[in-house]
Amino acid sequence: MPDSLTIGKPIKCKAAVCWGAGEPLKIEEVQVSPPRAHEVRIQILYTGICHTDEYTRSGKDPEGIFPVILGHEGGGIVESVGEGVTNVAVGDHVIPLYTAECRECKFCKSGKTNLCGKVRATQGKGLMPDSTSRFTVDGQPIHHFMGTSTFSQYTVVADVSVVAVNTAAPLEKVCLLGCGITTAWGAVIKQQGIKGSTVAVFGCGAIGLGVISTSALVGASHIIAIDTNPAKKSWAKKFGATEFVNPTELPEGTKIQDHLVNITDGGLDFTFDCTGNVQVMRAALEACHKGWGVSTVIGVAAAGQEISTRPFQLVTGRTWRGTAFGGVKGRTEIPGLVDDYLSGTLKIDEYVTHQRSLADINKGFHDMHSGECIRCVVDMS
Amino acid sequence: MPDSLTIGKPIKCKAAVCWGAGEPLKIEEVQVSPPRAHEVRIQILYTGICHTDEYTRSGKDPEGIFPVILGHEGGGIVESVGEGVTNVAVGDHVIPLYTAECRECKFCKSGKTNLCGKVRATQGKGLMPDSTSRFTVDGQPIHHFMGTSTFSQYTVVADVSVVAVNTAAPLEKVCLLGCGITTAWGAVIKQQGIKGSTVAVFGCGAIGLGVISTSALVGASHIIAIDTNPAKKSWAKKFGATEFVNPTELPEGTKIQDHLVNITDGGLDFTFDCTGNVQVMRAALEACHKGWGVSTVIGVAAAGQEISTRPFQLVTGRTWRGTAFGGVKGRTEIPGLVDDYLSGTLKIDEYVTHQRSLADINKGFHDMHSGECIRCVVDMS
Repeated sequence: MPDSLTIGKPIKCKAAVCWGAGEPLKIEEVQVSPPRAHEVRIQILYTGICHTDEYTRSGKDPEGIFPVILGHEGGGIVESVGEGVTNVAVGDHVIPLYTAECRECKFCKSGKTNLCGKVRATQGKGLMPDSTSRFTVDGQPIHHFMGTSTFSQYTVVADVSVVAVNTAAPLEKVCLLGCGITTAWGAVIKQQGIKGSTVAVFGCGAIGLGVISTSALVGASHIIAIDTNPAKKSWAKKFGATEFVNPTELPEGTKIQDHLVNITDGGLDFTFDCTGNVQVMRAALEACHKGWGVSTVIGVAAAGQEISTRPFQLVTGRTWRGTAFGGVKGRTEIPGLVDDYLSGTLKIDEYVTHQRSLADINKGFHDMHSGECIRCVVDMS
Repeated sequence: MPDSLTIGKPIKCKAAVCWGAGEPLKIEEVQVSPPRAHEVRIQILYTGICHTDEYTRSGKDPEGIFPVILGHEGGGIVESVGEGVTNVAVGDHVIPLYTAECRECKFCKSGKTNLCGKVRATQGKGLMPDSTSRFTVDGQPIHHFMGTSTFSQYTVVADVSVVAVNTAAPLEKVCLLGCGITTAWGAVIKQQGIKGSTVAVFGCGAIGLGVISTSALVGASHIIAIDTNPAKKSWAKKFGATEFVNPTELPEGTKIQDHLVNITDGGLDFTFDCTGNVQVMRAALEACHKGWGVSTVIGVAAAGQEISTRPFQLVTGRTWRGTAFGGVKGRTEIPGLVDDYLSGTLKIDEYVTHQRSLADINKGFHDMHSGECIRCVVDMS
């Protein structure tokens, strides 16, 4: 719990530090500086582990900077705030936001996107907005990650990168709103026309299941789930898929997009890529119905990879789009999602298949690679 | 003028026949059979020449079928109609439609697309809906093209592929509504949000100029025209462009998309590819503003070519779409365009730079390759 004795002082606590590309995380004692103006120090109680953490840890992310404290799907309690912070207060239950919402920049004011320009440049460099770090280990600065760094018992974030939520909600669950579940929800909710339409969802990880669940919630007529892991069939059905297709079980030489076009009388109204695989992204586009099909890229592809298709696919009426954090404005919309969870309309508990202690966080990364893990939540205490 | 003595009988007339891939057109005496049920025989008075005609003539179109009578941008007068035709009558001034509108198929009824499935399969094979041809030369069947074959003094089309227009409009002008000008108009008009927005138009041929002109009509705030031909600058300005960029005049190594993003504070709200070049299509997408930019592919790429980009472009909020015939439903919307022309709100005269006789139609193809030709209209008399 927050301790007023710590306000204005550095805090020593445990954090999982990644010292270099491809290395496992190492639990270290880190020193966390107090928040500066327009910053918030948060005691992180729980955090999910997401594929983006693993992407950077693995060294595949060319923009990865080390040493670093990863983690971007956290829930915690405000320990202290810097000068000028008005949107959260000490003791608030909060979710850090890797997609900030400043409400002042060109992007925020446009009304057309959830992307925010305010802290983007420094966040990409693993630093706070004043271009410094709040983390040190034995005096050595450690980089921030995605503006959140939730793999630390205490972290510091910009005030535009945090939102307070209903204290009635268990943080070990709603921490997952920091990334996957919100991304999936937004990708569907903000796409007009899903009600009564056919949907195909490529990939049945947490994001894919969230897209399935939200599509069912808004009333899609058919929801076809696609995954190469046969164990995902029961998961997909549990979240609302009406059909499941395993591409590896198709007759040899049959492309998944051709199969889907065949079984849907011309293709899907909406498709979603939740894999990050550029070949799957192409299949998702080409599985769309001529004339009106819309394909949304949600998955994050590896660096340097490109998507391709014949332009004829677009000229004949298909639309290729994408979404980051589901198009959700975190400060404005996440409190409502927490309320939806509390009222039972938004699934969260169902995603949590594994739980780990901070000491065992590397096991959580291994869990993620097994086909049985949807989300692993780490208890930071 | 239509002659009632010809009704129900074959008509002998002149047509430009392409006997094989890459060959020049040859003026032949063709026999044109009378229209069968739900078909219309039209005396073509004028026709434009479009790049799609040249694409097939040149042999680059792998779906090209020979011998064939090309042409799809025509204007004429109904000579006779087959059984069951109710939408046009003898003597009507008409425009043949390569994009049919049956109002009965899944596509037409969807309310989401102008593509029509009714005659698509046979049209693609160069045949009438009953899988036969109405053209012969010395008894040898000649294929139809795009369901229109306007390079003949008489042609036969499906009744779903023709629309009657105001007889006050000169056919030597409104024939161009059969393709390019309508395509450009529709691509802009049917895209919400152009008013007050920034637009970039890649390629200043007839389609590009039409996109510029329509963007100006609906109130785009800035219209940047892009073409490698410096002579197009004055054309673009004449049609409403506020700026002109020649990519070949940029500093070496500067990509056009990077230049455009720089001079527009982050990119364009809307871009249009009017070139058919897949590298330009990519540039048009990547010149879009992060968060909300929409790029529309209008140009038709050569067979086998593919568009590519990093999926990050989509995930960060850009949308890639396309349009065929501008999304326009020909039977429903072209009469209104003719009226717009007559009332002075739609430019057509300004596109006509060259005129040729049928005997000189090959010169019209040469005109098209010169940078000075926007549209060449052929007098079929």
